[in-house]
Amino acid sequence: MNESELKQYVSTIENIDKKACEKAEERQSQLAKPPGALGKLEEISVRFAGITGKVKNYLKKKAVVILSSDNGVVEEGVTPTPQSVTAAQTINFTMRKTGVGALAKNFDVDLCVIDMGVNTKFPHMMISSEMYDFLDDKIIDRKIRYGTSNLAKGPAMTREEAVLAISVGIEAAELMKARDYDIIGVGEMGIGNTTTSAAVLSAITKCPVEISVGRGGGLNDAGFARKQEIVREKGLETEYDDILDILANVGGFDICAMTGVFLGAAKNKLPVVVDGYISAVAALAAYKIQPLVKEYMFGSHCSEENGYKVAIDEIGISSMLDLNMRLGEGSGCVLAFEIIKGALGVMNDMATYDEAQIDENYLELMADAKF
Amino acid sequence: MNESELKQYVSTIENIDKKACEKAEERQSQLAKPPGALGKLEEISVRFAGITGKVKNYLKKKAVVILSSDNGVVEEGVTPTPQSVTAAQTINFTMRKTGVGALAKNFDVDLCVIDMGVNTKFPHMMISSEMYDFLDDKIIDRKIRYGTSNLAKGPAMTREEAVLAISVGIEAAELMKARDYDIIGVGEMGIGNTTTSAAVLSAITKCPVEISVGRGGGLNDAGFARKQEIVREKGLETEYDDILDILANVGGFDICAMTGVFLGAAKNKLPVVVDGYISAVAALAAYKIQPLVKEYMFGSHCSEENGYKVAIDEIGISSMLDLNMRLGEGSGCVLAFEIIKGALGVMNDMATYDEAQIDENYLELMADAKF
Repeated sequence: MNESELKQYVSTIENIDKKACEKAEERQSQLAKPPGALGKLEEISVRFAGITGKVKNYLKKKAVVILSSDNGVVEEGVTPTPQSVTAAQTINFTMRKTGVGALAKNFDVDLCVIDMGVNTKFPHMMISSEMYDFLDDKIIDRKIRYGTSNLAKGPAMTREEAVLAISVGIEAAELMKARDYDIIGVGEMGIGNTTTSAAVLSAITKCPVEISVGRGGGLNDAGFARKQEIVREKGLETEYDDILDILANVGGFDICAMTGVFLGAAKNKLPVVVDGYISAVAALAAYKIQPLVKEYMFGSHCSEENGYKVAIDEIGISSMLDLNMRLGEGSGCVLAFEIIKGALGVMNDMATYDEAQIDENYLELMADAKF
Repeated sequence: MNESELKQYVSTIENIDKKACEKAEERQSQLAKPPGALGKLEEISVRFAGITGKVKNYLKKKAVVILSSDNGVVEEGVTPTPQSVTAAQTINFTMRKTGVGALAKNFDVDLCVIDMGVNTKFPHMMISSEMYDFLDDKIIDRKIRYGTSNLAKGPAMTREEAVLAISVGIEAAELMKARDYDIIGVGEMGIGNTTTSAAVLSAITKCPVEISVGRGGGLNDAGFARKQEIVREKGLETEYDDILDILANVGGFDICAMTGVFLGAAKNKLPVVVDGYISAVAALAAYKIQPLVKEYMFGSHCSEENGYKVAIDEIGISSMLDLNMRLGEGSGCVLAFEIIKGALGVMNDMATYDEAQIDENYLELMADAKF
């Protein structure tokens, strides 16, 4: 997929089915509860109906697509974590050993782990070029190269590479639709990707670095100052032509591919859940490319990273979970799937006022009945 | 159980196992993630370990105990909903037709529905005096009388009735422990019980009626003013001897029984989840009777009722879900069970740094390995 094909693809994304939303809203208003008493559960079930075109929906097949990639900017000392963790955790995803792995195992969620540019040559037996081999716990090999270039010194990648990475995300979403998944989440692994996310967020929204740049896990003062400096210079103070230009200059292969997953999910009318900070920034990039993708997105947990809320508010979606999490990996998506399952369960199985027979006569009849 | 037996029972509630908490914390600190990155999931798993005494825990059997009762104060016009809804929804719980019913059905949660004082004579075939018959979807008959007296005109109930209602809650918690439930939630149904909850909250905390009294579902201005007036006079401006005095004067049979469930759960080292406003006020009453019960409690969703947060903050626990819900019934508990299941899954199944082999050597070894 080249840039003009991508533009064409994105232009054909449709809005959700507003008539199905209306039908779903009508049923919600008839359910035996005070109006609005189930809050966001009601909104979720109504929007889900708009996505699928059906009032009643079920989550049978669930997956999280995890994009792994390394970032050249780590050589600037913006993270205390060694780069090798990206590769190790990418392997550990396939073994269900990480946070999202443990959650996926407990909630029957498939993980599709894609190597977009990890700075390690994985052993042959661990990888596959066939994307559907994620079901055999292979790492899907879509490595563009062994990590991006250092964005502090020049563009992280070329514009063509950004388009390529986005198209891999689209490929993943298309596969998930073809394999009948009812919902997907979008997670990542990439040491240094809170720096790239902050730069993309500040470039898109002009959000000050005091908000976009977090300290992450144990970054020292010097590293934190350097992280802010890079994001200020390359994110906030540099002008870019468009979203693709921003993604190529200061993004990562993971963020680009995640952006592609959001676009591909919307194109395929597949509900898609946003995870934490990096996922939210990719969701924002997708939204800026095609605002209609917002209708297909659900927020999960409110990340501890301050930039998360900026991204999510700019898109105009909300979170369901308040868990002070900041792990990434798609961990929040797995938990959000359960809340969405609950929202759909209420729509499917709760009685309407008529069915619940909530009126005086019913009780009088019952009291008089001879059992 | 008379009052002195209740006092004796409550005095034998023990703290959670702090050594088990330490062991659980130690394992959490070794899991392959930045410290604290899983936020409240970590706290939940650690406290759960303290409750059971084991580091690894599972949620196999889950139940919500629902206390139904009517409130004499409804004759003051403090709610637009007819009293008969209490009885109708009590029946509908057993048929899984309500909000919590639909959720329970979707998440394999048992419902124990107890009639504490519904103003309806239920047909014989629907009720049982054997509490374990909740498994046959019977309404458990512990009716004290056909609703409390109007608290605006005098005490809602006698002190003896309050003790009796609390002891029913304790009985329910004891049964749940005996039947090997791993966790329980506490819900309710009772038209008028946001008025009683507000009165109990304002009496305990001196919280102004502008915060404790909400409008609920569609209360008009006159009803809202009367609701505030009653809560101000009977909750805020009247002095009471102790918590039992407050519960008897301005509480309800449902709130008293819920208080008992929290006390009984703590006594039996059974994790217990708080639902919305009414549940939180009962949890606060239990906490004021015996502060150690706090250690056994988990908040679920942040209710839309403002008084909820006052109660939960006073206890010192937090919510996991941000869903703008205000249904009650124990609906938030069912969703919280899933988050807790996730928290336990992470503790049980996530790899430690050693197990995850996150170091440079591992990757070099792998890269060199001949597969």
